[in-house]
Amino acid sequence: MKKLAIGIDIGGTNTAFGLVDQEGEMYGESIISTKQFPDFDQYIEELYMGIQNLVKQIDFPMELIGIGIGGPNANYYNGTIENAANLVWQGVVPVVEKMKRFFPSIPVIITNDANAAAIGEMVYGGAKGMKDFIVITLGTGLGSGFVANGKLIYGHDSFAGELGHVIVNRTGRVCGCGRKGCLETYVSATGIKRTVFKLLADHLEDSEFRYISYNDLTAEMITKAALNGDPLAIEAYEYTGMLLGQALADAVTITSPEAIFLFGGLAKAGKYLLEPTRKYMEMHMLANYRNKVKLLPSGLHGKNAAILGASALAWDCID
Amino acid sequence: MKKLAIGIDIGGTNTAFGLVDQEGEMYGESIISTKQFPDFDQYIEELYMGIQNLVKQIDFPMELIGIGIGGPNANYYNGTIENAANLVWQGVVPVVEKMKRFFPSIPVIITNDANAAAIGEMVYGGAKGMKDFIVITLGTGLGSGFVANGKLIYGHDSFAGELGHVIVNRTGRVCGCGRKGCLETYVSATGIKRTVFKLLADHLEDSEFRYISYNDLTAEMITKAALNGDPLAIEAYEYTGMLLGQALADAVTITSPEAIFLFGGLAKAGKYLLEPTRKYMEMHMLANYRNKVKLLPSGLHGKNAAILGASALAWDCID
Repeated sequence: MKKLAIGIDIGGTNTAFGLVDQEGEMYGESIISTKQFPDFDQYIEELYMGIQNLVKQIDFPMELIGIGIGGPNANYYNGTIENAANLVWQGVVPVVEKMKRFFPSIPVIITNDANAAAIGEMVYGGAKGMKDFIVITLGTGLGSGFVANGKLIYGHDSFAGELGHVIVNRTGRVCGCGRKGCLETYVSATGIKRTVFKLLADHLEDSEFRYISYNDLTAEMITKAALNGDPLAIEAYEYTGMLLGQALADAVTITSPEAIFLFGGLAKAGKYLLEPTRKYMEMHMLANYRNKVKLLPSGLHGKNAAILGASALAWDCID
Repeated sequence: MKKLAIGIDIGGTNTAFGLVDQEGEMYGESIISTKQFPDFDQYIEELYMGIQNLVKQIDFPMELIGIGIGGPNANYYNGTIENAANLVWQGVVPVVEKMKRFFPSIPVIITNDANAAAIGEMVYGGAKGMKDFIVITLGTGLGSGFVANGKLIYGHDSFAGELGHVIVNRTGRVCGCGRKGCLETYVSATGIKRTVFKLLADHLEDSEFRYISYNDLTAEMITKAALNGDPLAIEAYEYTGMLLGQALADAVTITSPEAIFLFGGLAKAGKYLLEPTRKYMEMHMLANYRNKVKLLPSGLHGKNAAILGASALAWDCID
């Protein structure tokens, strides 16, 4: 009988979910709206029905082994989502408890999406067999998941792994967290937009970006321009890589990982991000660690990576 | 039959060792010279005889359960000391292998002294029952041991936990590691000496330190002056605490510990170090973590703390 895990990725707009086997093969996936269900009980019911529909379409004997959920501000220990600014539900939402009502006999695990990406990397991706590694997720912000001794570091309150909020410049850019100079104000989709605008201010060269407003500019446009050889876009990536490389050199002194994986939209710039990041990481690294730490693109591919990561929580938990 | 572990603290000048029970009670301790034995085999023989002498003095039935060793540049995975600048032995020294010849039937574990201090804190000290905490050792340099999920983070190469070499100022003080602005150039016995000299340069106020050369000044003198209310010494501690607090606020984002323990000479300044460190740590912390992380003096007391820490490796390993 084929064993499958359910992976659920809760986003502010939509929730994506799918059935995944132990090798990371996806057997059907679907989506429901998140924001149309301010009533959390209704949302869970809709999600349950969506999962039932997926299961019905499986035309071979199967067994569900567990449910892994990735979501913002998730508390792994309590099974809750707590005060997530981008979700329609206020306060503390008991996600695991509510899911357990529909799936009482299998484990249900929740964590934030960066931690899910790290477990996904370990179960299906480039970190298979590794015991010490870091995953950096580059989206609107910068998330991270640290694995040491083969286990994800949740910390005593489940909120470990916020590398995006390490301070890289105490008088630097204002961050959404209320402080200044957090790494994610430089290294993220938003961060590189800010960097492009800083470069437009510092330089006089013409650029296609001089015709675009801040609110119209996207990280994808910057990536596309870099791939087309645009000097300002390449410089923006160089600057992003410098700050990421320096921050990773510092992070390495704490957990001394075998590898660091870059996951998410910005990582699609490929060498334009990887090369400067690697260069500055090595340049700023303590000699002990130099030329030892692999910097790699995530081994989780495609639009389903978030579902894959979430489903890996279930496989990791039954191991 | 009483069970005892052997704890060995290898320093550049001397090696201290003792017999310790599971509660951290010491049953005899002794010392041999390290630097008088450039021949490592002779050193190990001398150490073995020293241990035999201690064991002979025990006047009740006892069983040795293991040997824990703390030493500079120790590789936990390989059981070696590697290229330690302050030791008489060159290159890679197979400490565990050589000790095993004399103690073939009990576990022998080696790690660096900061990691040993962390395990000691967990086995005997203030971190009993904690699964996520950090120990900072403040000596000539700044060492650190990170525990997550109840296990010390060694990293893939056993050299994790070098918080002393996180960069706090990229254009800052020259560090012995060849880079600039490492945390330990500010926060350590040497670091606070450098800070006193910077303050003497910046200000004009008279101070007892204006009569003392750099080479004659010690951290103990600065601590004593602070305890006597000397404004410059207190300012030096305030500055040290600011940089330590800021660095700890960043470290917390990675492992989210329940507590951080300060161990070693500089920590003896008590409130003069703890208070500014706590103040700046909270001030610079991401809101998620504020008022959650305990900052505490080490629970390992007295001059035997290094032996205690080392012996804890043996207890932790048989648990």
